[in-house]
Amino acid sequence: MAQGIIRLRASICAWATAVGRKESEGPLGSCFDLKDPTDKFGQKTWEAAESEMQRRALALAIGRRELKPEEIDMLFAGDLLNQCVASAYGLLEYPIPYCGIYGACSTSAEGILLAGMAVTSGIATWASAVTSSHNCAAERQYRTPIEYGAQRSPTAQWTVTGAGAFLIGKAEEEGVPVTRGMIGIPQDSGVKDAANMGGAMAIAAANTLKRFFRESETAPWDYDRIITGDLGYEGGAILCDLLKADGIDIQKQYSDCGQLIYDRQRQDVHSGGSGCGCAAVTLGGYLLPRLWDGVEKRILFLPTGALMSPDSIKQGRTIPAVAHLVELEQRKPRQEEE
Amino acid sequence: MAQGIIRLRASICAWATAVGRKESEGPLGSCFDLKDPTDKFGQKTWEAAESEMQRRALALAIGRRELKPEEIDMLFAGDLLNQCVASAYGLLEYPIPYCGIYGACSTSAEGILLAGMAVTSGIATWASAVTSSHNCAAERQYRTPIEYGAQRSPTAQWTVTGAGAFLIGKAEEEGVPVTRGMIGIPQDSGVKDAANMGGAMAIAAANTLKRFFRESETAPWDYDRIITGDLGYEGGAILCDLLKADGIDIQKQYSDCGQLIYDRQRQDVHSGGSGCGCAAVTLGGYLLPRLWDGVEKRILFLPTGALMSPDSIKQGRTIPAVAHLVELEQRKPRQEEE
Repeated sequence: MAQGIIRLRASICAWATAVGRKESEGPLGSCFDLKDPTDKFGQKTWEAAESEMQRRALALAIGRRELKPEEIDMLFAGDLLNQCVASAYGLLEYPIPYCGIYGACSTSAEGILLAGMAVTSGIATWASAVTSSHNCAAERQYRTPIEYGAQRSPTAQWTVTGAGAFLIGKAEEEGVPVTRGMIGIPQDSGVKDAANMGGAMAIAAANTLKRFFRESETAPWDYDRIITGDLGYEGGAILCDLLKADGIDIQKQYSDCGQLIYDRQRQDVHSGGSGCGCAAVTLGGYLLPRLWDGVEKRILFLPTGALMSPDSIKQGRTIPAVAHLVELEQRKPRQEEE
Repeated sequence: MAQGIIRLRASICAWATAVGRKESEGPLGSCFDLKDPTDKFGQKTWEAAESEMQRRALALAIGRRELKPEEIDMLFAGDLLNQCVASAYGLLEYPIPYCGIYGACSTSAEGILLAGMAVTSGIATWASAVTSSHNCAAERQYRTPIEYGAQRSPTAQWTVTGAGAFLIGKAEEEGVPVTRGMIGIPQDSGVKDAANMGGAMAIAAANTLKRFFRESETAPWDYDRIITGDLGYEGGAILCDLLKADGIDIQKQYSDCGQLIYDRQRQDVHSGGSGCGCAAVTLGGYLLPRLWDGVEKRILFLPTGALMSPDSIKQGRTIPAVAHLVELEQRKPRQEEE
């Protein structure tokens, strides 16, 4: 059916995460693979550090499945630096066909969806999705260099320093099955405040979720968790309200990676975490292990992305947003191929 | 086979192009659909003008196939503005699932490849690829605002003001068949001069072409044309030299969209055209009509993208590049589905 649910036969078979200090000190700190208290990962610039997190995360994910880079058919990667340079430089050493993607903070789901489609169709045997964000690189590109000490508004979020890499293989492989997906239709929030991303993106998550429930004939109680990427406290509350107005109550199942990754009181993050890395490392560090271990049976993961730029905001434009969805199930062991 | 040729069963069934004044005054001027001598397309900013070109080109392409936007399953779009805002704002009015992509000047091929994969797999019935660039928006983002009148180096290229939209359907539909594709593996050129993009990108085109010829067991003479996106005069010459050193002579079949779109002498474009729009409008305005009419039987279209940013150049990084390839054949009439 046009524009509808994408049926996938793929599994997330390995993954890895890399994070900075603040993330390693948060409630999920013990869940992450690679940590650097300096946030620099041995590099001279924040941008190079972001690239290095991607490089190391992908190396670890590939190594965990005991594959060689040459066995990966394609790589879907993107980030929020101008011209997606964190991915371009970070993954340059890998001799893997490379598709750059741009989904802002929804990049992790877009990459997993496209990798899942490539594997489902048989075009790829192994595909990978990688993304990242870095607080200091994001601050100076989007707002002001951190050294300026600019004051943050109550709805502002804290860009996560982190990268996640995901290795997607056939449904027969041992892994967390990716069973369905839905590509988001961009929504114009009408919001012009770049310090209220959650408010701008909630409408996109509501749109994708409503479409998914309608077309799949499922409901919130069919899922253990419905989890957005970085709506934070502000956007998360708006999403629940928007859906409630349409008779859909997700309160029981709902959580948001931007709420989970930091301790709101102790870590001074205002409305929660954000950035491409936020959803990616929470998925890799926290959600996938729970699906692997069977703690959760079935979740909907739908990170949102705000599709504006600092220039478009200066030119008075509103903030469009998109939310891509993937349905994940508890681990299946390796099956013999038919 | 891992990392190899992607076999596609898809057709480019409709397309449309929009260009500015300089392009409409060039050798291909009469080939383009929509032209605006003010380069503004009724908008107040260059960035909004670029978005508007995308919006209008897609409307025209969809209209030519007498489809409704709701019948398009997915949209692959991207551009070179920071955070790909030309695409995000330009295509916001379309209620179509949206996958942002980032391939720099290779975006047109990346979009057609991904759309072709989605159609080949049956996941999409109709998919679209859209991209653009705008000279004035690019100049102020990458170099200096045009009002400054900065001097340009001999290897510099001229960013095309133009947008192309492509509608990809099943192989059974009437259209230009997309038969094979290959995703590029990024290459580090070692070049650090942002005013020599052709020089930086030639190595990526050479890598993809060599891989394609080897794995497909084809040779240059199997094609009427082998056409890059915006290597220009400098990069085009380097590509031919690089391949010749490996015993592959493409001189007879080779041309470059950046060489075709402007009159080098008359239009003062130094090393030729560039930008996402360069390959897109040359494909839509010139190459696809020739394949539609049977003037060309079989071509390889492989635009290249430089994956750096102004910041990465300032930080002393070299310029990585990628080249995605699609094989296109002469029009096939509509066939009854089996």
